[in-house]
Amino acid sequence: MTAPSQAARADRGLHRDQRAHVAALHTELVRYALVTWTAGNVSERVPGEDLFVIKGSGVSYDGLAWDGITVCDLHGDVVDGVRAPSSDTAAHAYVYRHLPAVNGVVHTHSPYATAWSARGEAIPCVLTAMADEFGGPIPVGPFALIGDDSIGQGIVETLAGQRSPAVLMRNHGVFTIGDSARAAVKAAVMCEDVARTVHLARQLGEPIPIDQAAIDSLYERYQNVYGQR
Amino acid sequence: MTAPSQAARADRGLHRDQRAHVAALHTELVRYALVTWTAGNVSERVPGEDLFVIKGSGVSYDGLAWDGITVCDLHGDVVDGVRAPSSDTAAHAYVYRHLPAVNGVVHTHSPYATAWSARGEAIPCVLTAMADEFGGPIPVGPFALIGDDSIGQGIVETLAGQRSPAVLMRNHGVFTIGDSARAAVKAAVMCEDVARTVHLARQLGEPIPIDQAAIDSLYERYQNVYGQR
Amino acid sequence: MTAPSQAARADRGLHRDQRAHVAALHTELVRYALVTWTAGNVSERVPGEDLFVIKGSGVSYDGLAWDGITVCDLHGDVVDGVRAPSSDTAAHAYVYRHLPAVNGVVHTHSPYATAWSARGEAIPCVLTAMADEFGGPIPVGPFALIGDDSIGQGIVETLAGQRSPAVLMRNHGVFTIGDSARAAVKAAVMCEDVARTVHLARQLGEPIPIDQAAIDSLYERYQNVYGQR
Amino acid sequence: MTAPSQAARADRGLHRDQRAHVAALHTELVRYALVTWTAGNVSERVPGEDLFVIKGSGVSYDGLAWDGITVCDLHGDVVDGVRAPSSDTAAHAYVYRHLPAVNGVVHTHSPYATAWSARGEAIPCVLTAMADEFGGPIPVGPFALIGDDSIGQGIVETLAGQRSPAVLMRNHGVFTIGDSARAAVKAAVMCEDVARTVHLARQLGEPIPIDQAAIDSLYERYQNVYGQR
Repeated sequence: MTAPSQAARADRGLHRDQRAHVAALHTELVRYALVTWTAGNVSERVPGEDLFVIKGSGVSYDGLAWDGITVCDLHGDVVDGVRAPSSDTAAHAYVYRHLPAVNGVVHTHSPYATAWSARGEAIPCVLTAMADEFGGPIPVGPFALIGDDSIGQGIVETLAGQRSPAVLMRNHGVFTIGDSARAAVKAAVMCEDVARTVHLARQLGEPIPIDQAAIDSLYERYQNVYGQR
Repeated sequence: MTAPSQAARADRGLHRDQRAHVAALHTELVRYALVTWTAGNVSERVPGEDLFVIKGSGVSYDGLAWDGITVCDLHGDVVDGVRAPSSDTAAHAYVYRHLPAVNGVVHTHSPYATAWSARGEAIPCVLTAMADEFGGPIPVGPFALIGDDSIGQGIVETLAGQRSPAVLMRNHGVFTIGDSARAAVKAAVMCEDVARTVHLARQLGEPIPIDQAAIDSLYERYQNVYGQR
Repeated sequence: MTAPSQAARADRGLHRDQRAHVAALHTELVRYALVTWTAGNVSERVPGEDLFVIKGSGVSYDGLAWDGITVCDLHGDVVDGVRAPSSDTAAHAYVYRHLPAVNGVVHTHSPYATAWSARGEAIPCVLTAMADEFGGPIPVGPFALIGDDSIGQGIVETLAGQRSPAVLMRNHGVFTIGDSARAAVKAAVMCEDVARTVHLARQLGEPIPIDQAAIDSLYERYQNVYGQR
Repeated sequence: MTAPSQAARADRGLHRDQRAHVAALHTELVRYALVTWTAGNVSERVPGEDLFVIKGSGVSYDGLAWDGITVCDLHGDVVDGVRAPSSDTAAHAYVYRHLPAVNGVVHTHSPYATAWSARGEAIPCVLTAMADEFGGPIPVGPFALIGDDSIGQGIVETLAGQRSPAVLMRNHGVFTIGDSARAAVKAAVMCEDVARTVHLARQLGEPIPIDQAAIDSLYERYQNVYGQR
C-alpha cells in the first residue's frame, strides 16, 4: 500500500462522478451519528476496473467533495487523487480482492455496535428488523492490528457463511459490505440501530428469542419483496 | 394485497392534498428520531371513501412529497400512485377494516419502545404524561410475521378494551392509532418519549406506581380539557 | 382560572414585546430536547403589574410567536390573548402569588430529570456544575394532581429553604424558578444536564460525594463571580 | 488574575484573527454536544508572546465571534477584550505557564466523561480508537476548587508521564491539551466519544482488555501515519 506521503500530487479527476457520489454518501454517516471527527469511511469498487475509490485519511466531513476521495488499485496503491487514502485502505482492498460480489465497504466506530465489539459479543437476532436486514446475529471478528492484511482477513473470514453484511471487529468497530456503497452504508446505519435497540432491551432483562424459522422467513421476504422493484 | 410489482404505472393524482399532508407528517418521525433509513410509515383513511393513503415501500424521507404516498383500498390493493405501498400495508388495511373510528395509523421501530417489545414487557403507567395520553400501560401484542393478517389482528385484539392508542408488537416495534394521521403520529412520538423515561427510571430502581384513580382523573382531564377548543 | 373555552377572542396585543421574548425562549427547550410535541411551558411575570405571560395550551413550538403566548392575572384568568393558556397555568400563578421574588417559571418533562422524579429520588449534588447552579441536591416534591393548587403548593413548599431553583414533582416532571424567564429556562436546561450526568455516573457505581463546605464555596462563587457584570 | 469587573472597557482588536479562529472552534463543542448553555471553553496560546486567548465568561455560543474572546497574559490578567475571561482562566494560564509545548486547552463538562469523573474512575483503554488518540487510559485528576492554582496543578501533575491529552478532573469534567486549540478540541471530542462507548460496553459486561504492546503499536502508528502529511 502506498504510504500517505506518496499520494499523487495532481488530481487527474479520474472517476470524478463516482467519487462525488461516494463523498455524498458520507453525509449519512454524519446524519446517523455513526462517526466522530474524521473517523469512518466509505469506499466503492469502480465497475469493470481493478480499482476502488475511498475517503482520504483524516479528511473532515464538512464540505467533503469528490476531491476528498482517492482512487486506489486493489492493493491500496494510489492511482489518482491528492489525498492520502484512509488508513483503513488495506482492509477495504483486501475485501475487494477476496469478495468479488462486494462493491461497497463501510467502516465506522458507531458507539453501540462498538460497545458490543469491546465485549467481543455478537448481537443476537431478537428484532424483526434485524432478521430483515441481517438474517441472524451480527458476528464478531478477531482483534487485529492495522497496517497489514489482518483486518481484511478477519472481515472476510468472519463474514464467510453468514447472512450478515456487518461484522464487529473486536475492540475496534464495524465493517459492512454491500453490492454498492449505498447498500454498505445502509447496513452500517441499520447495524447501529439494532445494536442500540438490543442494548436497551438487554439493560432491563433478557430479550425474547425469535425462532430460526421466523428469522428465515423474514429475511427471505425482506430481501425479495421490500422496496421498489 | 397488490404485490409491489403491480403498483400503478401512472399517477392520476387522486387525493393529492391528503397525500401531501401525510407525506409532511413523516417529518415528525424523523425529527423525533423514531425512524432509521426508510423504516416506518404513516397512513390515513380517506374521508367518506373505502380508501387510505400510505407511504411507499422503502421510499426515503428526504424530500418525501405527495407522489411518494400511494392510495390503497381497504384490502391494501393499489388504487393510485407510482410507488409500491409500504410492506406494512396489510396491517394498516386490517386496522381500517376492523376499527371504523380509526382514521390514522403509524408504525415505527423507535428504539426505547422497541426495546420493551423485545422483552415482551408492557410499559407501566408511572408518569402523569403517560396517564394523560395513554390512560394506563402501553400493552404488548403477539409475535406475528409480516405478509398476512397476523399483525393487523394482533394490533386490533391487543388494543380492544384498552385506552392506549399504542401497542408494542413483540420483537418488532410500535403501531399507533388515532382519529387522524396527526393524532396517530402524536401517539407514536409520546410512546417513545414515555418508553424512554420509564426505561431510564427503571435503570436505577423501581418507579413509584400511580393509583388507578389518579390515572383515571388525569386521563379524563387531558382528553377533555388540554389544548385549544 | 379561566377555562380554555373562555379565552379572549380578540388579542389587544398587551405586553407584546414580553410575549415575543417568552415565545423565543421556548426555542431553548427544543434545542436541549427538554420537551416533546407541545408539552412544556415558560412563563414570566409582567414587571410592576399583577400579571404574567404564559404559553398557550397544546400550541406547537414551530413558529411560536407573541400571539401564542397569553396574558393572565395572578389567579390564572386570561387578560389578553386568543390562546387558552397552558393547562399548568394554575401552578405558575400559585408560584407568582406566593414567591414575590420569582419572575420566571418553567415546566418540562425532560427525560432524565423525570426519571429521577418517577422513583421519587432527589438528585445528589456530586458535580461541581451542580454545586454552582443548584447549591445542593435537586429535591423531590409530592405527587399532585393537576387542576387545583396542589402542584403550586408542592413546588413552593418543596423549594422553601432550598438553594435549588428546580424541583422534581413526583411521577411528573420539572418545575424551575428564576428572577427572569431566562434564568428559569437556564435552570431547566442545567437540571436535565446534571440529571443525565449523575444518572450515567450511577449506572456504573457510586459517585463520590462532595463535601458540604466545597458545595457552599462553589455555590457562593458561581452566584457572585461567574459571567459578565 | 483580573476580576471580571476589571475587564478592559474598549477592545483594541489585538490578535483578532486568532480570536476569530478560537471563537469558531467552539462550534465543535456544540456540534458534539459537549457543552450545555454557556459552560465550556477553548483557549490558545499566542505564538511568540506570553499571551493566550480564551472565551469570555458566561458568553453564549450563539453568534460567538472574535469579540467574545479575551486576550490574557500567562497569569490570566486581561490584556485586551471587553468580556471578562472564562472563570476557568486561571487553570488555562497555569497549564500554559508549566507546559511550554501546549498551545491549546479545552474544558468541558461532557456528560459521559464527567460521569466517569464523578466516580473518580479512569477510562480503561479497551478500544483501538482510544489507543490511537490517548495511548492508554484517560486518567483522573484530584478534586480541586476553582479560584486558585489547584485545578491547573491537578491537570499538570496528572498528565505528567501520561500519553493522554485528556484528564478527568474529579466530580468536575474534562480538560484537554494539544499543540493547537484545534488539537485540544479534537481530544475533547474523542474523549467524550470513547467515554460513551466504554460506558456502553461496561453496562452489559466487561470489555476485553487490549495488550499493552498492541496499545503501543496503535498509538505510535496513529501519531505518525494518520491523516495528511
